[in-house]
Amino acid sequence: MKISQLIGERFKERPTGCVIDSHALMYRGGYMKYVANGSFSQYPPLRRVCRKIEAILRQEMDRLDGQEVLFPAALPASLWEESGRYQSVGRELFRFQDRSGIPMVLGMTHEEAAVQLVREYAQTYAKYPFMIYQIQTKFRDEARPRGGLIRVREFTMKDAYSFHTSQKDLERYYTRCLEGYHRIFARVGLPEVIAVASDSGMMGGSLSHEFMLLTPVGEDTIVRCPHCGFCANKEAVESSDMAADISPESFSETCPACGQRGLTLSRGIEVGNIFQLGTKYTEAMGMQYLDQEGNPCYPLMGCYGIGVERLAASICEARHDERGPIWPVSVAPWQVHLCCVRADDAQTKEAAGRIYRQMEDMGLEVLYDDRNVRAGVMFSDADLLGAPVRVIISPRNCQEGKGELTLRDKSRTELISLEEIAGTAGRWVRELAEQLESALDR
Amino acid sequence: MKISQLIGERFKERPTGCVIDSHALMYRGGYMKYVANGSFSQYPPLRRVCRKIEAILRQEMDRLDGQEVLFPAALPASLWEESGRYQSVGRELFRFQDRSGIPMVLGMTHEEAAVQLVREYAQTYAKYPFMIYQIQTKFRDEARPRGGLIRVREFTMKDAYSFHTSQKDLERYYTRCLEGYHRIFARVGLPEVIAVASDSGMMGGSLSHEFMLLTPVGEDTIVRCPHCGFCANKEAVESSDMAADISPESFSETCPACGQRGLTLSRGIEVGNIFQLGTKYTEAMGMQYLDQEGNPCYPLMGCYGIGVERLAASICEARHDERGPIWPVSVAPWQVHLCCVRADDAQTKEAAGRIYRQMEDMGLEVLYDDRNVRAGVMFSDADLLGAPVRVIISPRNCQEGKGELTLRDKSRTELISLEEIAGTAGRWVRELAEQLESALDR
Repeated sequence: MKISQLIGERFKERPTGCVIDSHALMYRGGYMKYVANGSFSQYPPLRRVCRKIEAILRQEMDRLDGQEVLFPAALPASLWEESGRYQSVGRELFRFQDRSGIPMVLGMTHEEAAVQLVREYAQTYAKYPFMIYQIQTKFRDEARPRGGLIRVREFTMKDAYSFHTSQKDLERYYTRCLEGYHRIFARVGLPEVIAVASDSGMMGGSLSHEFMLLTPVGEDTIVRCPHCGFCANKEAVESSDMAADISPESFSETCPACGQRGLTLSRGIEVGNIFQLGTKYTEAMGMQYLDQEGNPCYPLMGCYGIGVERLAASICEARHDERGPIWPVSVAPWQVHLCCVRADDAQTKEAAGRIYRQMEDMGLEVLYDDRNVRAGVMFSDADLLGAPVRVIISPRNCQEGKGELTLRDKSRTELISLEEIAGTAGRWVRELAEQLESALDR
Repeated sequence: MKISQLIGERFKERPTGCVIDSHALMYRGGYMKYVANGSFSQYPPLRRVCRKIEAILRQEMDRLDGQEVLFPAALPASLWEESGRYQSVGRELFRFQDRSGIPMVLGMTHEEAAVQLVREYAQTYAKYPFMIYQIQTKFRDEARPRGGLIRVREFTMKDAYSFHTSQKDLERYYTRCLEGYHRIFARVGLPEVIAVASDSGMMGGSLSHEFMLLTPVGEDTIVRCPHCGFCANKEAVESSDMAADISPESFSETCPACGQRGLTLSRGIEVGNIFQLGTKYTEAMGMQYLDQEGNPCYPLMGCYGIGVERLAASICEARHDERGPIWPVSVAPWQVHLCCVRADDAQTKEAAGRIYRQMEDMGLEVLYDDRNVRAGVMFSDADLLGAPVRVIISPRNCQEGKGELTLRDKSRTELISLEEIAGTAGRWVRELAEQLESALDR
């Protein structure tokens, strides 16, 4: 599409009140607009990034034998009373009444709804194991929304729920999901995301993991041992029984797993989490199945979450320079940004228009800038929109029958003949995609 | 996928409390599960139908030069106070307070959010016209939810908002959208949907249209004149000034447009609507642009809605027999239903498994029933799941090297050699798709 038609505002200046770069850059680039505390509308570039993330999430959930469902976002409070969460969850839960005065909640997660959906279906062992997932709007009335899209009160979440007849089967599937999550993060361009034991992880089991993007601006603190590979959320270590007598200061001292000294602390953004829930919800909600001997049993559950907008912002946080995001090709709003420098020059504009049509015909996603603006404005916008491949058609190169092909991360720039530049841009896009895929084999 | 793994419950008996066929059949077929009054969870078959409808909606919105965005579902009440709707809309609007006591609403439609998103962006005439759309969960606290998915309190909606600098441009775009809507309904398999003047339609203008699927179970009444083609929602006719002195009984008498007698009444389900909003929201919310002479002006808006689940249920209502839905191939949860009758027969099962893999390799969406159950149970489930093409592998035909290929609507049945049956099934799927597309040219 043409950038002149793209909805959204772009700004030169870093706005006040942005404490992290991704927030400032995505605001400046016209990715989102503030609506209310912790609540944003999405302009087309962000919507495109999120839809690409969602497509990858669907593919990977299907690969894990998941089946997509959809739960209501607004749930009767009675369902949350069944699990006990209506009482145990605090003010993060949005509560209201319908016109009849019936108490309702806005779903933060959907364990109750998942159990309600399958408890009649899965009454015999032969139906197990299975996993259902949805991609849906979630609501959390956060006390302190922050970091732009990192911590908001309304967001899109992929939440998945698996059901099992034994702890062993749950653990086997949980391990598959853990590997699936690494695939997801690699595919969206963040192969460096690490899995960190959280919650009861210190107890020797592996009841839950958080997936952390290490970054100084993260709000979580991760404890790592260089000797044994121990890795945990500091909060989890502190809250576990085993570590009850360990003061926070001691983490740089002794590893609770191997006992050696030299623990390190890092900060990170949680970009996903997986939990072994056991029978917590199925017992509370009376979901049972008959095993092979006809005995009633409570199934075990796992749950698996990834927030879409937070992941988009985290990718931006990990992949940007001072001028804008450097989107991995798999999630970039457009694959190619085409700049026609000096659109008032007929020959240049004619060449750029031809190359635009060629690339569109090839199925490339192209954002075409044919505005009659200064090159500085054009490149600044291209930097903010962050397409990984850029084609620049200028009068000087055009006269010599050439155009400039460059990567957003500045690692590669070539002059290519105008006849070949569309095809070469397509090849660069494919090569970038292959580089991402190759991370899956590691 | 294999039907033995498909999440959901299927029932033989028509449930009590279902007043329309689509509700009963979609309940019996394991498409949805009741959660609360007017609120359902979606099992995988319905989710698949809805996602296909959503994909068609996106394609057609993009074709109308729309750009996808996303607004918050929960909005600050202050935004609705700007437009005046916080006061004017009644109890259908879900209202609540956040943890700080700030009043909020759950969006029924998003005119206010649309204006909020673009009012700084579109401050000069050169930015116009443009259209933004989203596909998102909507909430309406209906007094009387009914008809299964036809009238619910939470649903997915495609809502689009266009902005223009003149009534003429709005009308030109509105006409494009009206044609785009006919394309949408034809593509989902409902080419018979008609556009009906609603609201102020009687006043000679065409300020809004409803798209009606004529069916005896519809809750709207449509007045039609066989002489001049006049067509309007009865409610609209009654509420218009022009018709103020016409009693409902007279509709079967005199056409308010041409004056001739013989008006007919039909019932219909509203499956979409389009409105010329004019400057109602832009004036109320102070959105202005500068025209070519530098004068501040209020842009004109159009809005365009389609409810996804209601459309899915309407398709089922229009395309079913007593045994289940007959899904148009464009929205069918699966294209092909493969039945292995007598899965206990090794040769039959081997042949069916091979054909399953062949069809999957061809990229067909296949639901494979290899359960060891009676043929009656198998066919009953296939009827309820409604895939348009069915492949039946049975011992008797298998011994002769053949399988049965049949259409869900019973219009065609052939015995085909086992070698060719996967390819022929694929051809039948393509032919069904081409039939739907051919309706676009009419």
